Amino acid sequence: VTRFRLDLAYDGTAYAGFQLQGTQPTIQLRLEEAIASVTGHFARVQPSGRTDAGVHARGQVAHFDSPTGLPAADLHRALNAVLPPDIRVDRVRVARPDFHARFDAVRKEYRYFIWNHRVFEPFHRPFRLHEPRPLAVEAMAAAAARLRGRHDFASFTANPRREVGDTTRTLQRLDLRRTGPLIVLTAVADGFLYKMVRSLAGFLLAVGGGKFPPEAADALLRARRRNAQVPTAPPQGLFLWRVGYGRPGQAGEGNARAGEE
Amino acid sequence: VTRFRLDLAYDGTAYAGFQLQGTQPTIQLRLEEAIASVTGHFARVQPSGRTDAGVHARGQVAHFDSPTGLPAADLHRALNAVLPPDIRVDRVRVARPDFHARFDAVRKEYRYFIWNHRVFEPFHRPFRLHEPRPLAVEAMAAAAARLRGRHDFASFTANPRREVGDTTRTLQRLDLRRTGPLIVLTAVADGFLYKMVRSLAGFLLAVGGGKFPPEAADALLRARRRNAQVPTAPPQGLFLWRVGYGRPGQAGEGNARAGEE
Repeated sequence: VTRFRLDLAYDGTAYAGFQLQGTQPTIQLRLEEAIASVTGHFARVQPSGRTDAGVHARGQVAHFDSPTGLPAADLHRALNAVLPPDIRVDRVRVARPDFHARFDAVRKEYRYFIWNHRVFEPFHRPFRLHEPRPLAVEAMAAAAARLRGRHDFASFTANPRREVGDTTRTLQRLDLRRTGPLIVLTAVADGFLYKMVRSLAGFLLAVGGGKFPPEAADALLRARRRNAQVPTAPPQGLFLWRVGYGRPGQAGEGNARAGEE
Repeated sequence: VTRFRLDLAYDGTAYAGFQLQGTQPTIQLRLEEAIASVTGHFARVQPSGRTDAGVHARGQVAHFDSPTGLPAADLHRALNAVLPPDIRVDRVRVARPDFHARFDAVRKEYRYFIWNHRVFEPFHRPFRLHEPRPLAVEAMAAAAARLRGRHDFASFTANPRREVGDTTRTLQRLDLRRTGPLIVLTAVADGFLYKMVRSLAGFLLAVGGGKFPPEAADALLRARRRNAQVPTAPPQGLFLWRVGYGRPGQAGEGNARAGEE
């Protein structure tokens, strides 16, 4: 049996998220169907973390075990030949037998794309949030600075009870870049709670719309309890951009928490 | 009656092209429906040139006449409110009564997007041509240089008999820019023949694939007759990017031919 690592990109528009949900179209279902059809063996696919319905991935990572004798390059070609075009395998590698896409992840990067202009470009519609009213990006950046670092993010998860273990995470990056009407929110952490990026985005968008001052972030972090200041931003602007692992040979030492966004 | 100028963007994926074709979904049908619903009056929409099925526009221009008393800004908002999200009005202006979107156009720019990588990104799929085999971009650029300038482009139109008048055009720009796996072909001319940009793209792609040397361009121009060296590249990579008009007050002097791409 060989353990394979997959690097994946997908357009999440047509899917009910990553995780299997019976016969509903999900990324996992399509991947497991493709692997079975190509190798002749069923294999369970384990991602670095599940993505929600409508969320996209540019750099998702997953692993699976297979008794197939196919070399990685052939598997790569064959999987892309049978997968639907909105799921693409960017790379297939033979992994060490103890590599784990979820437990070995030490860093995740998400990007949230906001089109801040009265007119929404007809291209890339499924890939951006449309915010027609002008956003105060400086206020959003000030709020983001207050959220960076190691904090208990219980106020920024959809359901704290769903979390295994505690809700403290280290946000290494949370910043905004504006290029014309496009605002890109980048979030990097050792792991994310359930819907944490969309909750951070929802709060920052409310700050950008003038509903709360940036300082509201402090009280939210202290409260460790979600309130109406934290709406969940829609999924279509969100991409799982990159997953970082320890250097080769160090992967087993990774202390990442499982991202659940 | 007021003449209005519309600046438009659309995702052509779901449409049978710009021009009315009975009840088939076309850009013109949706625009005329939207104008009728907003103003209460039917108006014929005249574009700078028709785009084919599946071709997109970032900077299409059109005009129409209407007895509406609505100011341009209200018309703008109202049209976007009723149009489907894959057609967006970027600007509405009151035009001079003799402004003509087609006859006054003096310059058109098209861009053709090619994704030249083994793996096709699942995002922007309707907006790029996928070419998995490595393309010789220098050879393509050398062929493009031979096509630039004033020539009879009869070999690069789908149907020379369809052309009104002669088939000579001035290609002010035809060049390629590669950024990683993305190749952008830009074509600027005083006007384009029917399917001319896709014919140029099809020929350049064949040169890039090593089927013919760049010098084949010379014989094609001389032959003034299309042959198998000139396939029509698919529509989804193509955008009508910009339409240029004479300076205000000079529009009536424009000597552009009507683009038909």
